[in-house]
Amino acid sequence: VGDSFEAIAAGLDFLLPRSEAVVVTGGLGPTADDITTEAIAKFLGRKLILDDDALALIKERMRQRGRPWSSNNEKQALFPTEAHKLKNTVGTAWGFALWEREKIIAVIPGVPAEARQMFLEEVVPLLKRAFPSNDYVLTKVIKLSGISESLVDQRLADIDLMGLSLGYYPRFPELQLVLTARGKELNHLQEKVANALKKITEKLKDYIFAYDDETLEGIVAHLLQERKLTIALAESLTGGLIGDRLTDVPGSSTFFERGIIAYSNRAKIELLSVPPAVINEYGAVSRETAIYMAKGIRTLANTDLGLAVTGIAGPTGGSEIKPVGTVYIALSDETDTYCTHFHFPWERRRNKILTSQWALLILKRYLTEGLSHESS
Amino acid sequence: VGDSFEAIAAGLDFLLPRSEAVVVTGGLGPTADDITTEAIAKFLGRKLILDDDALALIKERMRQRGRPWSSNNEKQALFPTEAHKLKNTVGTAWGFALWEREKIIAVIPGVPAEARQMFLEEVVPLLKRAFPSNDYVLTKVIKLSGISESLVDQRLADIDLMGLSLGYYPRFPELQLVLTARGKELNHLQEKVANALKKITEKLKDYIFAYDDETLEGIVAHLLQERKLTIALAESLTGGLIGDRLTDVPGSSTFFERGIIAYSNRAKIELLSVPPAVINEYGAVSRETAIYMAKGIRTLANTDLGLAVTGIAGPTGGSEIKPVGTVYIALSDETDTYCTHFHFPWERRRNKILTSQWALLILKRYLTEGLSHESS
Repeated sequence: VGDSFEAIAAGLDFLLPRSEAVVVTGGLGPTADDITTEAIAKFLGRKLILDDDALALIKERMRQRGRPWSSNNEKQALFPTEAHKLKNTVGTAWGFALWEREKIIAVIPGVPAEARQMFLEEVVPLLKRAFPSNDYVLTKVIKLSGISESLVDQRLADIDLMGLSLGYYPRFPELQLVLTARGKELNHLQEKVANALKKITEKLKDYIFAYDDETLEGIVAHLLQERKLTIALAESLTGGLIGDRLTDVPGSSTFFERGIIAYSNRAKIELLSVPPAVINEYGAVSRETAIYMAKGIRTLANTDLGLAVTGIAGPTGGSEIKPVGTVYIALSDETDTYCTHFHFPWERRRNKILTSQWALLILKRYLTEGLSHESS
Repeated sequence: VGDSFEAIAAGLDFLLPRSEAVVVTGGLGPTADDITTEAIAKFLGRKLILDDDALALIKERMRQRGRPWSSNNEKQALFPTEAHKLKNTVGTAWGFALWEREKIIAVIPGVPAEARQMFLEEVVPLLKRAFPSNDYVLTKVIKLSGISESLVDQRLADIDLMGLSLGYYPRFPELQLVLTARGKELNHLQEKVANALKKITEKLKDYIFAYDDETLEGIVAHLLQERKLTIALAESLTGGLIGDRLTDVPGSSTFFERGIIAYSNRAKIELLSVPPAVINEYGAVSRETAIYMAKGIRTLANTDLGLAVTGIAGPTGGSEIKPVGTVYIALSDETDTYCTHFHFPWERRRNKILTSQWALLILKRYLTEGLSHESS
């Protein structure tokens, strides 16, 4: 709803009779258009009270971040009467919860990172206490790459999910399946989930790369650490995105030695020892160049593995034989170098993301089952 | 609302009497839980009709992407009677619009990239045609970094916006202000917006880095191209993120020569010629190392500019004197090298993002007004 007293009131008016609990997000900031607290208090006929603890904490937080105190921030320490405060460990805006006619109204900030954290850490426990249930809810997230929703649906068509629900959530470049079981007997539910998961995994094993909170980069990092292998990167079209993803994993310095963003031909020649004649004959975007890049970065960095990508991200630079989206990914180890060819159908940003995804998928496959040469 | 016939019907039942138009997103995929089209047809008492054109296009699209045809996809060519189809140029699911008792129901996919594109290219023009208005609406987006919402509010407190509305939207690492003017006289509105924009810009000029659709990397790229300058990067904690952002700009190869992700000390020493004694004495995260990195990458790449970052992203690696979030950013040109020290208060990912943001902000400032040495 919009930032107006009428819209907030109309929303509550609609939702409260239809719900056990209403969660409101946003409009808790210090600025003039942040009116959620005031609007809710007004709607419920409650007064606003200045909370000293919240005020002290907000002041301390601003000080820590080196932000000068502004009297506007005082607004963020105002709560309706009988409000239960909800802590915010990410930002300055606290939330609150109210009980109104046996229903709960929980109010949290709208900034996504804060909303997520407070929903999980404050609102969910509150709702669990308020509505104790004998029902257990188990969920399992299955993350896939390289397969469409409809093909997944087809492959799973003859599987009996025994009453569990299965949702499809495309999160580019992934497809997430969420398996949910609800019921009173925990053992029984766990068995059902394990059973369904086994069947789904059998049908889709070539495409599943992670479960639940796991990320592709996290899994690859773990495999490298487990096998005590080091890696270096030579990136062209991705411009550093693969390095960025790998270094999102805490402790990545244990396996990631360096990366070269070899955007120019000169960088490919000088740093990665790609022979100029190879670039002249086959082009900077070619299987041959990719292989030289992977070998070159492995040798330069003196690591166990060298991973290289070269391609045409778009929108320009494509040709009849090498259209936009043409990508080569090469992986080199002590004994051999593997190269795979792709043609991605998207625009620049998505082609970069898909290239990073497939580079990490290839690395994962290498670390779990080895790789064989492939021509495409 | 949830993926159930009842929830979709209840939603329409609530919204239709209160709105001129309802936009529905999601549930247009090929899988069993995609029931939006069927639910809406049922709610309105309309039949579903197979559309041959949509079917042919979906088949063609699947073929182009090398995805085998699945009979499930046929579902995506079913539309309620008298539906106006809405094209999807990003994915396979088309949307549609219906007129029901003088109101419009527009239905588009929920995948964010598709929803955005179809809303702008299909739904907005449809609504404009359906509800012609004499009111002009002008908006101006102002993008800031390095200032909090409450400080912006304070600085703008004594500005007369002459009836224009100003919204605050924190989009980490940016803060976006959206100025909106609505009225019948275009000239008058334009004047008002220009006037308000001038006042806001005066108050916040140190923090504004872009307007409207401009991105920080796009502006920096444009400035480099305009001044015919080349640049190379030496990244440590950001792991390639700055390179990734710069290479999101089409044509970035005209100014971006290479990047080194110097994650290890060895990479800093071997490639960037940071003296081992400097790392030993001052540490890899220090003003001295950052300056050597910036000079080193400029020399190695033979570019006009060298930009380097080194720091502690977290969660571990911090110390009493150099806590997590300590970052040095250095920029080197032919005659001089500038270094700035930061202390960011966030976790790993946000510290990386803020480092990339400030590196680009420093580069932008250098390209527009030059830089002076600063100690902090």
